[in-house]
Amino acid sequence: MDEITFAVLGTGGIGRRTLEVSQHKDALTPVAACDRHGTAIDADGLDVDELLAATEGNIDSEVATDGGTGAAAAEGEGGIKQHGEDRGVVASAQARPSEDPIQDIIDHGDRIDAVLLALPNYEHDFIPRVADRFVEGGYSGVMIDVLKRSRVIDMLDDRSEAFEEQGITFVCGAGATPGFLTGAAALAAQSFVEVTDVDIHWGVGLKSGYEDNRGTVREDIAHLPEYDIETARDLTDEEIEAIIDAHDGVIEFEDMEHADDVLLERAGICDADDVSVGGVLDVESDEKPTTTTVSVMGTTFDGETATNTFQLDDATSMEANVNGPALGYLKAGVRRNRAGEYGVFGPAELMPGF
Amino acid sequence: MDEITFAVLGTGGIGRRTLEVSQHKDALTPVAACDRHGTAIDADGLDVDELLAATEGNIDSEVATDGGTGAAAAEGEGGIKQHGEDRGVVASAQARPSEDPIQDIIDHGDRIDAVLLALPNYEHDFIPRVADRFVEGGYSGVMIDVLKRSRVIDMLDDRSEAFEEQGITFVCGAGATPGFLTGAAALAAQSFVEVTDVDIHWGVGLKSGYEDNRGTVREDIAHLPEYDIETARDLTDEEIEAIIDAHDGVIEFEDMEHADDVLLERAGICDADDVSVGGVLDVESDEKPTTTTVSVMGTTFDGETATNTFQLDDATSMEANVNGPALGYLKAGVRRNRAGEYGVFGPAELMPGF
Repeated sequence: MDEITFAVLGTGGIGRRTLEVSQHKDALTPVAACDRHGTAIDADGLDVDELLAATEGNIDSEVATDGGTGAAAAEGEGGIKQHGEDRGVVASAQARPSEDPIQDIIDHGDRIDAVLLALPNYEHDFIPRVADRFVEGGYSGVMIDVLKRSRVIDMLDDRSEAFEEQGITFVCGAGATPGFLTGAAALAAQSFVEVTDVDIHWGVGLKSGYEDNRGTVREDIAHLPEYDIETARDLTDEEIEAIIDAHDGVIEFEDMEHADDVLLERAGICDADDVSVGGVLDVESDEKPTTTTVSVMGTTFDGETATNTFQLDDATSMEANVNGPALGYLKAGVRRNRAGEYGVFGPAELMPGF
Repeated sequence: MDEITFAVLGTGGIGRRTLEVSQHKDALTPVAACDRHGTAIDADGLDVDELLAATEGNIDSEVATDGGTGAAAAEGEGGIKQHGEDRGVVASAQARPSEDPIQDIIDHGDRIDAVLLALPNYEHDFIPRVADRFVEGGYSGVMIDVLKRSRVIDMLDDRSEAFEEQGITFVCGAGATPGFLTGAAALAAQSFVEVTDVDIHWGVGLKSGYEDNRGTVREDIAHLPEYDIETARDLTDEEIEAIIDAHDGVIEFEDMEHADDVLLERAGICDADDVSVGGVLDVESDEKPTTTTVSVMGTTFDGETATNTFQLDDATSMEANVNGPALGYLKAGVRRNRAGEYGVFGPAELMPGF
């Protein structure tokens, strides 16, 4: 496959790690990265080492891997941490301040095969609205997100026709879950002529606690029965810490509104109702509180009932399980886009026709 | 994806089950099936129920699922079993005897999107030579096999240029192993920036013993250190039964020349040397002697060493694990073919760009 150029919108934890992991992948060249403060663009490829080193500590709240420092200060809605003079990505010599970083990316869109939207902790219509801007700006190519919410898929589906007209292949939910784990479920389903149950059970241990994982923790709290995405967004940091304390740092989730169900149905693997998603988040330990496991139960052509399983080693962090799959699905999206397949795709739909 | 028409070459166990399982899959229409005796072709779709019912007992030796009957008689090199007057597929009302069934398929090739070569127990250059015939006959489309031998991949690779000129997308090794299990390995590798070891360990219990599984057992014996594919082919049935008896019906295999290694290297997952394949075959029990497991060890971007695992339930037969993946990879091959991607592909290369 030919060289692929990509841009990262958002240089928080996911954006930074995507840039880092892409250096281990063949045929992927990051050519742009932006956050709300500015934009770094180089059609020949960004100097990822410089960008990451220069902006360390100046990052969004989403699942930081580089640990907090005493100098880090939370500010504004997104909780950007900052040290040094320049905000966010602008601390890199490759970046320039911008009033409208997204427009900068759109303006260079003809040189960008794929845009990774690494913006998971904004309001749930944020990514659909960003997609609208790319449509309006005339972008043609791949857009890919790592979201988890079923309703965002619906909002993107509403835009299918616009994506098709514009030549956009939108891949949604391509991170660890739903991306990695629905891909595993689609694979595991191949023993069966009918899938009766898919159980996705994840464990996450956040090494550095709430302080460095505000976005993820807040988003997960929105999955608790007594909260939703709006009420969770309105919680103060103190309220979130109180919720964590009330659960002794370990929060269990059942029957989450996780996009896994609709994505597996879209891919023809099973009915959405047959998918259950739950997990355990431990905010105070770097050990996973439970082993992430995908169990796919079904019946074989010869009438047996069986359960295939896929397990991620506890030593693989959530962070490690987001970026490899996201970049793999990004490549698959570019392949589809180049073949003229436009619209909205879930990760399991990009598996080999299973 | 649009409707896909396909043909099955070989109506032994794998061919028959592929026809059966395809009825559970969307958008797949079997339009042709042949064995050495004749050809059934219907551009509107074969009546699979009639074909399977009419030919039951008249099948090749390869892993039968329908059990042997006292009336079944082995004949000739391939050990065709037969009852009734007509040989093989010709027992179906849809089939006609043919001097050259492969040519029949080629002659109808413009209506056939994909050809599944369900011919695993012939000499190892048989499938490459069949591919040559399709090239010479002007076929353009997908060809797919379920072979296991590394050296066959090399022989197909020698034909890459001819496939590309002719518009053929050849998918090799798309059955349970290497197909299903290398796909699982490619998926499981996504936690890692470097894969250090892939261990594929399979268990097969052959419900109906040697009598109904001549092809598979003979092929597996060729993997024992004291045999190769030529010497195994020359064994008499009595010699094979003696080997089985000497192992008390349970034969263990280590470091097999299984195409998994070269297929994973082709897909960029790891070096072929880092892949080991072994398994246990129990010819006398329908219980699997060990659980089929794919273990992928690697290092994450954040420096952890870990092992992800994929396990097939013991209740899933080898038969169940061949046909679902084969049809999934067939669909992926057609998608590639329609996008103008020709040449030789392994199953893991059809995963989402991982």
